[in-house]
Amino acid sequence: MSKFEVLYTDRRTAARRAVLTTAHGKVETPAFCPVGTAGAVKGITPQQLEEVGSVLVLANIYHLLLRPGVEAIEKLGGLHKFMAWDKPILTDSGGYQIFSLSTLSKVDDDGVEFVSHVDGAKIYLNAEIATQIQNRLASDIIMCFDQCTPFPCEDSQLRGAVERTIRWAVRSKKAHANPGQLLFGIVQGGTDLQLRSYCASELVKLDFDGYAIGGLSVGEGRDDMLKTVVHTTSLLPEPKPRYLMGVGMPADIIAAVEAGVDLFDCVLPTRNGRNAFAFTENGPVRMRNSAHTQSREPIEVGCDCYCCRSFSRGTIRHFFNVGEMLGPILVSLHNLRFYQRLMAKIRQAIEKGKFVDWAAEQLKNGC
Amino acid sequence: MSKFEVLYTDRRTAARRAVLTTAHGKVETPAFCPVGTAGAVKGITPQQLEEVGSVLVLANIYHLLLRPGVEAIEKLGGLHKFMAWDKPILTDSGGYQIFSLSTLSKVDDDGVEFVSHVDGAKIYLNAEIATQIQNRLASDIIMCFDQCTPFPCEDSQLRGAVERTIRWAVRSKKAHANPGQLLFGIVQGGTDLQLRSYCASELVKLDFDGYAIGGLSVGEGRDDMLKTVVHTTSLLPEPKPRYLMGVGMPADIIAAVEAGVDLFDCVLPTRNGRNAFAFTENGPVRMRNSAHTQSREPIEVGCDCYCCRSFSRGTIRHFFNVGEMLGPILVSLHNLRFYQRLMAKIRQAIEKGKFVDWAAEQLKNGC
Repeated sequence: MSKFEVLYTDRRTAARRAVLTTAHGKVETPAFCPVGTAGAVKGITPQQLEEVGSVLVLANIYHLLLRPGVEAIEKLGGLHKFMAWDKPILTDSGGYQIFSLSTLSKVDDDGVEFVSHVDGAKIYLNAEIATQIQNRLASDIIMCFDQCTPFPCEDSQLRGAVERTIRWAVRSKKAHANPGQLLFGIVQGGTDLQLRSYCASELVKLDFDGYAIGGLSVGEGRDDMLKTVVHTTSLLPEPKPRYLMGVGMPADIIAAVEAGVDLFDCVLPTRNGRNAFAFTENGPVRMRNSAHTQSREPIEVGCDCYCCRSFSRGTIRHFFNVGEMLGPILVSLHNLRFYQRLMAKIRQAIEKGKFVDWAAEQLKNGC
Repeated sequence: MSKFEVLYTDRRTAARRAVLTTAHGKVETPAFCPVGTAGAVKGITPQQLEEVGSVLVLANIYHLLLRPGVEAIEKLGGLHKFMAWDKPILTDSGGYQIFSLSTLSKVDDDGVEFVSHVDGAKIYLNAEIATQIQNRLASDIIMCFDQCTPFPCEDSQLRGAVERTIRWAVRSKKAHANPGQLLFGIVQGGTDLQLRSYCASELVKLDFDGYAIGGLSVGEGRDDMLKTVVHTTSLLPEPKPRYLMGVGMPADIIAAVEAGVDLFDCVLPTRNGRNAFAFTENGPVRMRNSAHTQSREPIEVGCDCYCCRSFSRGTIRHFFNVGEMLGPILVSLHNLRFYQRLMAKIRQAIEKGKFVDWAAEQLKNGC
């Protein structure tokens, strides 16, 4: 049986409704994956994460490698036990973080030496090491080691990064030693559609368990981002899951689903939650706004999350005003639930063959 | 029927097991009351607070008066709705905070003018105003307006504060206009036992619903604190609940129960929790200690809290090490559960007539 079963395909778009089977359970797609950078989704217990309907959670190899280290996690019983999450976990290979957070000391065709942003230690990663680490952590979905470029980026640098990403994908696949984990290749190429085509076609030859679109949402702008997504998904095999890394805003997720994307991760629900920015079907609500001082309304009428069932906007605004931790926690909870409700509605709309109309309605409401 | 029913009394000590009935339900005593200073127990949702077994929660009039203000809370549906807590709430009158947090601008026999530590606004409180505020907030247990003295304190100042506290108690009782709320008098007098006797006897004449011992745990040291508690509780009527304000450490709670105290509140479970200090039956555990790096043990073996059921010491230590909010949240949760388990064991030991032996065992273990 295939690990990825497409249940419904939309007649008018590339959207599809599927199920991805992992070693720790099934993921109904399109799915949104909260980010647990250093082993925790910020401010949210795994119990709360489950209550808001999360299934797949992301952790970052880059952060976990620096602290507490792979060996420590193994000694603590492995990544699932470490995070107290017995549902699926996706780990990224560290590529993105190395190039965005650390000081690089050497990049060559073999791999990358970088300086830890925590303590200045020099660390070396290449395709084999990044894959072995992910094998040891036994996450359910693992990512090939890739080179992520900034935006904007010189053509020659972009091409070099794509070439390396392809070679490193070959080596990641070869090094991958745990058949219980799904290995995804990552398509790079910035907003250069020809490079995206080249990278995608080379990766598809390698027959990965799934394919990610990386290197977007780094400053290229929404139009170029979506153009690249539409172009790239069309090159990826239909029977395999497609994962758009680090995106994003609800409207972007809807547009990417329309293009055929199945998986998403993003820090927005929690990062914005900590900053009093709440997502609703009618667009964002800023909870610090004094307009909420006397509001008995929940953040979003009709939302079934614990925050909306229990607290008024007035109380939440007060929590931010006086610096109570509960403000960031409650808005993060609501936002995580908002994203899970969004994905459930996307899945239902596809199942009912009404995705296009539903999507148009959402975008009209300012979602 | 009395609002306070003593079910068991210990034969060898003054400890008793009772039930206090409030407008929002019963409180089994001896009971520990977590502190929700500004309307929230720091970092803990009411759902989690309920899960750890909390019943009575404290909120501070001083803080709520400054932000968001009494009118705002009324407009948001009252204090219970504001805090999303439909169980009993105790509010203090503001006396302690005025004298410890604010800059006083005028104290006379009528009341206190102080400068808000938030925005410098001048605010006036006296017995009538503090009682009216608590009446409006409809908390279940309310406190008389009192004058709290620092430690050490001149005799004349201490005596003056006691005289005022008594006069303000008379006025608080007279102003109290909501018979659904229990009004407690507060015994002051520092560590001067004669003044404590005087204050207690004057308050007892006023026949309050309960009596608090205030002005302790302000630097007088454990011996003097306990000596004062033992002395004062013996002066308070047996059929009424006794509340030791702001105390404290588990061993102090056990000693105070032995002296006949029924209610406690303290910020320690959450304040210490945020600082990685975990309470256990065998004494404190500092979760930042690198000794925990590879420990698969829970904070406390046998503890039934969510933190201990789910997370190893190693993971919690990691969360503190990398600055994840989950560290403070999880240790606060454990500590709150530890205090509720402690009180449950105290109640059970009294019921079984084994309080003295049980208490000796706890203290021997370093609790």
